[in-house]
Amino acid sequence: MVDIYPEIERPTLVVDRERTKRNIAAMAGKAVSNGVRFRPHFKTHQSAVIGEWFREVGVESITVSSVDMATYFAANGWGDITIAFPVNIRQIKAINTLSKQISLNVLVESVAAVAGLRSWLDYEVGVWLKVDTGYCRTGIPWDDKEALLAVAGAVMRAGQLRLVGLLSHAGHTYKAGSAERVVEAFEESIERLIRARTSLGGPYQQLLLSVGDTPGCSLAPGFTGVDEVRPGNFVFYDLAQLSFGSCSEKQISVALACPVVAKHPSRKQIVIHGGAVHLSLDRLTTDGGKTVFGGVALPDAGGWTDMFEDSYVKSLSQEHGIVQAESALFETVDIGDLLMVIPVHSCLAADLMGSYLTLDRERIEMMSQSV
Amino acid sequence: MVDIYPEIERPTLVVDRERTKRNIAAMAGKAVSNGVRFRPHFKTHQSAVIGEWFREVGVESITVSSVDMATYFAANGWGDITIAFPVNIRQIKAINTLSKQISLNVLVESVAAVAGLRSWLDYEVGVWLKVDTGYCRTGIPWDDKEALLAVAGAVMRAGQLRLVGLLSHAGHTYKAGSAERVVEAFEESIERLIRARTSLGGPYQQLLLSVGDTPGCSLAPGFTGVDEVRPGNFVFYDLAQLSFGSCSEKQISVALACPVVAKHPSRKQIVIHGGAVHLSLDRLTTDGGKTVFGGVALPDAGGWTDMFEDSYVKSLSQEHGIVQAESALFETVDIGDLLMVIPVHSCLAADLMGSYLTLDRERIEMMSQSV
Repeated sequence: MVDIYPEIERPTLVVDRERTKRNIAAMAGKAVSNGVRFRPHFKTHQSAVIGEWFREVGVESITVSSVDMATYFAANGWGDITIAFPVNIRQIKAINTLSKQISLNVLVESVAAVAGLRSWLDYEVGVWLKVDTGYCRTGIPWDDKEALLAVAGAVMRAGQLRLVGLLSHAGHTYKAGSAERVVEAFEESIERLIRARTSLGGPYQQLLLSVGDTPGCSLAPGFTGVDEVRPGNFVFYDLAQLSFGSCSEKQISVALACPVVAKHPSRKQIVIHGGAVHLSLDRLTTDGGKTVFGGVALPDAGGWTDMFEDSYVKSLSQEHGIVQAESALFETVDIGDLLMVIPVHSCLAADLMGSYLTLDRERIEMMSQSV
Repeated sequence: MVDIYPEIERPTLVVDRERTKRNIAAMAGKAVSNGVRFRPHFKTHQSAVIGEWFREVGVESITVSSVDMATYFAANGWGDITIAFPVNIRQIKAINTLSKQISLNVLVESVAAVAGLRSWLDYEVGVWLKVDTGYCRTGIPWDDKEALLAVAGAVMRAGQLRLVGLLSHAGHTYKAGSAERVVEAFEESIERLIRARTSLGGPYQQLLLSVGDTPGCSLAPGFTGVDEVRPGNFVFYDLAQLSFGSCSEKQISVALACPVVAKHPSRKQIVIHGGAVHLSLDRLTTDGGKTVFGGVALPDAGGWTDMFEDSYVKSLSQEHGIVQAESALFETVDIGDLLMVIPVHSCLAADLMGSYLTLDRERIEMMSQSV
C-alpha cells in the first residue's frame, strides 16, 4: 500500500478504488440476477475514469442529471444516456447535438414541455414520463390518469418523440427512517408505477418502468415488476446511507482528508481545513438530536480507520470545520496531522471537490463545473 | 441595457456591476472616514476582475481564506495579503513561495503552529494572533492572558515572524438576531480585543487590532478602537444579510438565473434548474419557522425585480430547486422562463458557480477550484 498521506497539503477527496469497485459489482450483480437493466446514475461520481469501472462489469446505459453532464459522458464514449431531470428546453441546442450522436432519453411531465421539444427537436429522442409516486418533488401524480394520458398522448403525436416508459424516483425513501420503511416506500413506489401504467389502458401496456434511489435499490430484496434501476449514490455510499442502513461502514468508499489547523482543549474541539466549500452543508440529525456534518476517522495504511463513535463534524464555515472530539481522538491528533471526514452526502462532496485521489496515488478528474 | 436573459440556458450567476461597485465604494468610504485600513475579504467573490473594482477605490491590502486563494491573487498583482485562517503548515511550500514574492500575513493561535512556521519558513511573514472574542470557533480566548502571552512570546522569539497585531472575527454577529444586537456583539468584540492587548502588558501596546464580519462592519456607526476592518460578504450581500438588516434589498448584487422546468398547480410549486450544486444548502429560518433556501424574483430590464414577499425556495436537491410560489408569481411564470433566486449566502453560491455574468454580458471568471 502506497502511503499517500504525507503529501496531502489541502482538503483532498480520497477514494478507495477496491471498495468502489465492490459496490459497483454488487449492484450490477443484483440487477442482473433480477433480470432488470442497470442504468446507474453518474451524477454521484461525475468522472469518465470512474465510469470505466462500470464498463468493466458490462454497463452500457447510464443516467445523468443535466444536459451538460450528458455532453461530458457522450464525449467519453457513452452512447445511451437518460437525463433524469425535467427537460430544460433552454438547452435545446445541446440536446439536438446529443440526440444526433447518441441514443438520448429525456423526461417530460407536462404538455408544455412536450410542445417545446416538438417545436425545436431535430432528431429522435426517447421520452420517459416522469411519475410522482409519493416524493412530491417532480412528476405527474401516479393517480392522475387524465394528466398521464394527456402527456402520453402529446408524446405519441410528436414526430421525433419515442415514448419509452414511466420513470419515478422514490426520493422519499431518504426520509423513511428505518430500513424496513425504506423497502416499504420503494415497493409502494413500484406498485404505484405499475398502477399508473395500467390506468393508461391498452395501447400503453408495453411501456417500460424505471426506478431509482440508492436506499431502495440497496435494501429491497428484489426488483420485481420493473425493467430498469437507476441508483447513483451506492458507488461511494456515505454517512446518510449508513444511517438508513443502506450500507455498512466498510462500503463507504470516499473520505475527505483534512489538515488539522487548531485544537481547543477546553471544549475538546479540533479545527480542520475542510468546510462548506468542500463537504457541502448537507447534514444529518441523530436520534439524540445532534446535527452532524460528517463522521470522523484517522488515516491508516489501508485507507482510513473505522469512525470514532462519539466524534463528529459539528459545524462548517466556508473553509473551516469544527470537530467535536472524544478524548481518545483529541489526544491522538496534533496540529499538522490529517483527519478523515466521512461525508454526509458523497454526491455533493464529490461535486465540490472536482477530483479524487486514489489510495495508490492516481489523481482522477471529474467533469469541469464551469461551462 | 443589454438583455442577457434570452441567451441564458442553464443556472447562471448574474452580477449587477453598478450595485457591487456601490457596495465597495460605501464600505471603502466608511473605512476611510473612520481612519482605519480597509482590507476586504476576497473569499466572497474570488475573482481577479472583481478585485480590480476594489483597486479603483484605492484598496491595496486584502484578506483571503486559504493559501491557494492567496496564490491566485498574488499572481493577479496583489502584494499585501492576509490569510485569515489558522495557518495550515502542510502548505508551507506555497507559503514560502508567497512570502518571497509579497507581503504575506498569517494567523496563529498556538505555540505548536508557531513552532511549525519557525522550523520551515524561509522568508519573513507578518503574524496576527487570532483571538476569540466570543464566536467560539477558532482563536485564543480573549481573556486567556497566559495563552496570549505564550503564543505572542513564541512569535517574538522566532526569527522570520513579525508580530503585527491581534485579529478577531466576530462571527457570532450572524446569530445576533437583530441589527441592534449585531452592533452590540461587534462593539463588545472590539472591546474584548482591546482588553486582550492591554492584558499583554507594556511591550505589546503597539500591536494593531483587526476585525471582520459584514453585519458588524455594515451596521456599526464607526470603527473606534481598531486599526483595520476585513468584511467580505458586503460586496454582494445576500438574503441572510438582508435578514440581519445589514443591507437593503437594492444592495443585493447577485442573483442566480434558473430555468423553469416544471409547474405543479395543485401545490403551487415551480421546479427550477438550480439546486444544491449551484446555491449551496445554506438556509434561513424565518420568524414563522419556515426554512428558506433562497428568495425569488423575476428578471427585468434593469436586472431583476424586487423579491416576491410570499414566495421562496422551499427545498433543494442536487440539481433541482422547488419554489413555493404565491399566485401572482405562479400564474406569471411558464416552463422555459427564468426565475431569479436571491441566494441565502452569496459567498457559497459564488464559490459553486465559478463565474459571473454581468448585466452588460461580460463573463467574469473566478479562481479555479481544482488545484
